[in-house]
Amino acid sequence: MKRIGVLTSGGDAPGMNAAVRAVVRAATHLGMEVVGIRRGFQGLYQGDMRLLGPRDVANTIQRGGTILLTARSEVWRTPEGRAEGARHLREWGIDGLVVIGGDGSFHGAHFLSQEHGVKVIGVPGTIDNDLYGTDHTIGYFTAVETALAAVDKLRDTAASHERIFVVEVMGRHAGHIALDVAVAGGAEEVFLPEEDMPVTSVVDVINESVKKGKASSIIIVAEGYPGGAMAVSKAINEGTGLETRVSILGHIQRGGTPVSSDRILASRLGEAAVQALADDVSGVMVGRNNGIIAFTPLEETWARRKEISRDLYRCAKTLSV
Amino acid sequence: MKRIGVLTSGGDAPGMNAAVRAVVRAATHLGMEVVGIRRGFQGLYQGDMRLLGPRDVANTIQRGGTILLTARSEVWRTPEGRAEGARHLREWGIDGLVVIGGDGSFHGAHFLSQEHGVKVIGVPGTIDNDLYGTDHTIGYFTAVETALAAVDKLRDTAASHERIFVVEVMGRHAGHIALDVAVAGGAEEVFLPEEDMPVTSVVDVINESVKKGKASSIIIVAEGYPGGAMAVSKAINEGTGLETRVSILGHIQRGGTPVSSDRILASRLGEAAVQALADDVSGVMVGRNNGIIAFTPLEETWARRKEISRDLYRCAKTLSV
Amino acid sequence: MKRIGVLTSGGDAPGMNAAVRAVVRAATHLGMEVVGIRRGFQGLYQGDMRLLGPRDVANTIQRGGTILLTARSEVWRTPEGRAEGARHLREWGIDGLVVIGGDGSFHGAHFLSQEHGVKVIGVPGTIDNDLYGTDHTIGYFTAVETALAAVDKLRDTAASHERIFVVEVMGRHAGHIALDVAVAGGAEEVFLPEEDMPVTSVVDVINESVKKGKASSIIIVAEGYPGGAMAVSKAINEGTGLETRVSILGHIQRGGTPVSSDRILASRLGEAAVQALADDVSGVMVGRNNGIIAFTPLEETWARRKEISRDLYRCAKTLSV
Amino acid sequence: MKRIGVLTSGGDAPGMNAAVRAVVRAATHLGMEVVGIRRGFQGLYQGDMRLLGPRDVANTIQRGGTILLTARSEVWRTPEGRAEGARHLREWGIDGLVVIGGDGSFHGAHFLSQEHGVKVIGVPGTIDNDLYGTDHTIGYFTAVETALAAVDKLRDTAASHERIFVVEVMGRHAGHIALDVAVAGGAEEVFLPEEDMPVTSVVDVINESVKKGKASSIIIVAEGYPGGAMAVSKAINEGTGLETRVSILGHIQRGGTPVSSDRILASRLGEAAVQALADDVSGVMVGRNNGIIAFTPLEETWARRKEISRDLYRCAKTLSV
Repeated sequence: MKRIGVLTSGGDAPGMNAAVRAVVRAATHLGMEVVGIRRGFQGLYQGDMRLLGPRDVANTIQRGGTILLTARSEVWRTPEGRAEGARHLREWGIDGLVVIGGDGSFHGAHFLSQEHGVKVIGVPGTIDNDLYGTDHTIGYFTAVETALAAVDKLRDTAASHERIFVVEVMGRHAGHIALDVAVAGGAEEVFLPEEDMPVTSVVDVINESVKKGKASSIIIVAEGYPGGAMAVSKAINEGTGLETRVSILGHIQRGGTPVSSDRILASRLGEAAVQALADDVSGVMVGRNNGIIAFTPLEETWARRKEISRDLYRCAKTLSV
Repeated sequence: MKRIGVLTSGGDAPGMNAAVRAVVRAATHLGMEVVGIRRGFQGLYQGDMRLLGPRDVANTIQRGGTILLTARSEVWRTPEGRAEGARHLREWGIDGLVVIGGDGSFHGAHFLSQEHGVKVIGVPGTIDNDLYGTDHTIGYFTAVETALAAVDKLRDTAASHERIFVVEVMGRHAGHIALDVAVAGGAEEVFLPEEDMPVTSVVDVINESVKKGKASSIIIVAEGYPGGAMAVSKAINEGTGLETRVSILGHIQRGGTPVSSDRILASRLGEAAVQALADDVSGVMVGRNNGIIAFTPLEETWARRKEISRDLYRCAKTLSV
Repeated sequence: MKRIGVLTSGGDAPGMNAAVRAVVRAATHLGMEVVGIRRGFQGLYQGDMRLLGPRDVANTIQRGGTILLTARSEVWRTPEGRAEGARHLREWGIDGLVVIGGDGSFHGAHFLSQEHGVKVIGVPGTIDNDLYGTDHTIGYFTAVETALAAVDKLRDTAASHERIFVVEVMGRHAGHIALDVAVAGGAEEVFLPEEDMPVTSVVDVINESVKKGKASSIIIVAEGYPGGAMAVSKAINEGTGLETRVSILGHIQRGGTPVSSDRILASRLGEAAVQALADDVSGVMVGRNNGIIAFTPLEETWARRKEISRDLYRCAKTLSV
Repeated sequence: MKRIGVLTSGGDAPGMNAAVRAVVRAATHLGMEVVGIRRGFQGLYQGDMRLLGPRDVANTIQRGGTILLTARSEVWRTPEGRAEGARHLREWGIDGLVVIGGDGSFHGAHFLSQEHGVKVIGVPGTIDNDLYGTDHTIGYFTAVETALAAVDKLRDTAASHERIFVVEVMGRHAGHIALDVAVAGGAEEVFLPEEDMPVTSVVDVINESVKKGKASSIIIVAEGYPGGAMAVSKAINEGTGLETRVSILGHIQRGGTPVSSDRILASRLGEAAVQALADDVSGVMVGRNNGIIAFTPLEETWARRKEISRDLYRCAKTLSV
């Protein structure tokens, strides 16, 4: 393997630049060249790419977003689009491709590999942490920290006004962010897409809180819980007559300087992805499980569900007494 | 003057604790006692108060929210409610009262003073910076910083995806936060309640941006601009066909560790408020103008409008080229 | 088990309050009472303790330092001192003790257990991450983040002035913080107590950097590396003639709001410690390995050495090309 | 005026990039071109310069350090060096020069102007805030915030261990940072170069603190106070027998994302500098006093001393009771 490509795709996640940097530098270390492809698969389709050396990624490890940019690509959903992308890879003499992104991106990589025999390695870059085959995804730790900082600020106001805040955090299909934020933020309750918990159960939580003398409450709701924070707020209002404040944190959770855990994970996975290509591995995502680098077939990363931690969920309940 | 009271009222603002601390310590320095009244005027009505010594406010200068709590008080809008509050002040032997809050709180203080001859001094504590008679209000600097940090994060995503973000910041009647955030955040445009700017003007801004090669845009909208961020987003979509992302930052802007400027302002104003009571001054707000402590009759603080800086507004326009 | 005690001991670490909170609330959940002992073993010797309920630990999860205080105790090194402590535990009807701290604290707990049959559970609270039996210690993640934020700031200056910075981070006997900070901070080299690396090797690193066109360099040195940052700085100056700036981060690494990972770890371990006492376990530290709660005899926690990650060390080298 | 130059010089300060951006965009707005000169006067001597357009400074407003780099220049101290620089300015058709830096940089600009008739405008960029003619310098607010965040962290440890911390902050000749940090950090005492306060006076402060029941103390010392933090620490130890911890914050105070106040100040001053050149003004520093743009002859900026605020100094003393 002489030359590899790298792209970021899907929603941006903090630490993507650290992963790109690791890919470039690990490849350099192994004597390989790296081509950076801009705007994900859309840029691959359009041939928007250029060589990246180790100095090109200097001082990027701490940057949020992605210097390679990212974009949606409708054309990539078509065999013609992917054929055009494969053609660009051949033209540039690219032997393998590192795709940094989430499950949608891995689908795109999978088809490219299947249809055109391109060697691909996926690197999990998404704040949602919803990929099977890795304990954590790049960006997840930073998203949790950003959401937690917001919850800390809201608690100042909640405590001062003795109010109830219902806070919606990101996670369309997964409650990982919500659960971590609930435990770390000392929330009174958490609503997850993974749990079949009726929204009205919040009424007991609030009544119980009031009885215990809690003057304020923070309720965390994952974006993917049916109805989101608005539904929980409505249930509280209807069931207790108490007013709530709703806060939907939104896109701020995607940005910002990545925290150390995301940078370290990105560094490890970026390096491992290049090593995997050098070892002629393809069609897998590189992840880290229990501290060990592990490979999972791309199809499994989206087909199998990564469960939330039952222990942590129980812990959240216990400590909200 | 032997004993004074202090309360926080209205929306909480970062730095309120620094102001309470300054009141307690400045009073101690002058040989006066301080009674802390909880939950604002509601607590004064209910007689929820206790003596505060210098050690009671140790390690509070950096805390968000207010350790004295704050609450709405319907009963305080009635003469009977205020009479009851005045009775509690007499019972406790309180000769003067420091009220930390915004214009609603100053109304409450004004009536108490008019009806019962209680000596009152207002200290401007509100993130909105909308009080006449002081260049800045306590909490304002921190709110700007919090909003700016969010804008920086959104810019990471905006730049990575080449997207337009419309960000709504607090300020129901005033655009001070919005203007500062727009300049400091390098925003492409800002919509303020003070400016009679049609929402459709954003269409030209975006078209101009695109023409100049800007791949992403951040538009700041003050809460008090008619229709808020949603109206601006709609105008962009209808006028350019481009998609936008809306982010309404909300209550996180109220919380958090106060930045140095808020702590210093709170320290100066809290001290000056006590000195004013010691000097038999009453019925005024203590503020800081051009670095100098200044007093303004309470009625003027809400009757007169504090203008936004025309120079800064022009600067925002110039630098968004 | 009806009533347990909890104390924090040794150097303070961010997340200790989250651990105390978890102990109190998990005990409440199991119907046990908790006595908070102030100033560590010194306070136990002096009988400085009081009951703690779930509301006493409200709003403490985000606080740095330890609300129970901590102190050195010379008297605890004597059998008489420990006998006095054991007497206080009996007087208060305390059946088991949770000790949050590092290896020195675990020694103290071990002797108390051996000599007086007191049931003890250790909870690893130290920023150094140098305890065998747990992947991470409480406070470690925050210390890394604080040091990393400082390195990011120094890099701004290093890059602007094209300078070499030598940064010393905490870790008297262990290089965990240094290694993580080096990888996450994109450092050019890292010196650890665990590695037998001559200080003069830095000369080649700097010469190599200059040759590659790196205009600035950051070198991370663990406190426990012989000679620390000063020795490395001297070696650079003597071997290359280049000037360096030295930054010794020091105690700031101990403080601050704990990051989510520390709060979550503290919550899990505090809960597990209480459960262990309820299950009649004693003489062990509760840790988390590969996400699973695990117990290690107290003597092993200090007798066996926790190795740094070889993979991560290699990764640091690879990515600094 | 058709084309102007801009450079950053001396120690880097957060907000320098915001100033460069403002210069570039304000010039564009007025139809002028901008040449960015790298590495300050050294780069001007070497002719290291290129045209900068509005897009070149996109997404730089939030960056620490300076994208134009900065360097010491021995050759600039010689008439020959400056003649060479003037020659490069003529070659490039540059009619005026904006110099962003501190008093050393303004000296360099002054000589260039005197000897070669080059029109120069100074923009105050230094964390020390020690330039006469402007209430604040660009970078000052961020440096205070960084130092304050460190003090907050140290207080966590100080309070947990009931210890005394002596913290040295930057300011070789000026105590502005120290005074602000002392007030905002709630320090027990502050030592400034401007005050003729014997180091032994700290003994009374500590004894008084202990008597009042303060368990921990934070003492702030400006770098420029004779002997710095070490001298104060020694005095405490010798006069009270108590141990202290010393923390010298150092270069971290130079780096980091600029806070809003520095970005806004930089935006205003950068714009005003360009306008001044367009108005044929030269030989002055542009500053902001009481919110108003003001010009001061360059020689006055270093010849006259900017005093610290006596009111704030008194306030610091009063509130440390």
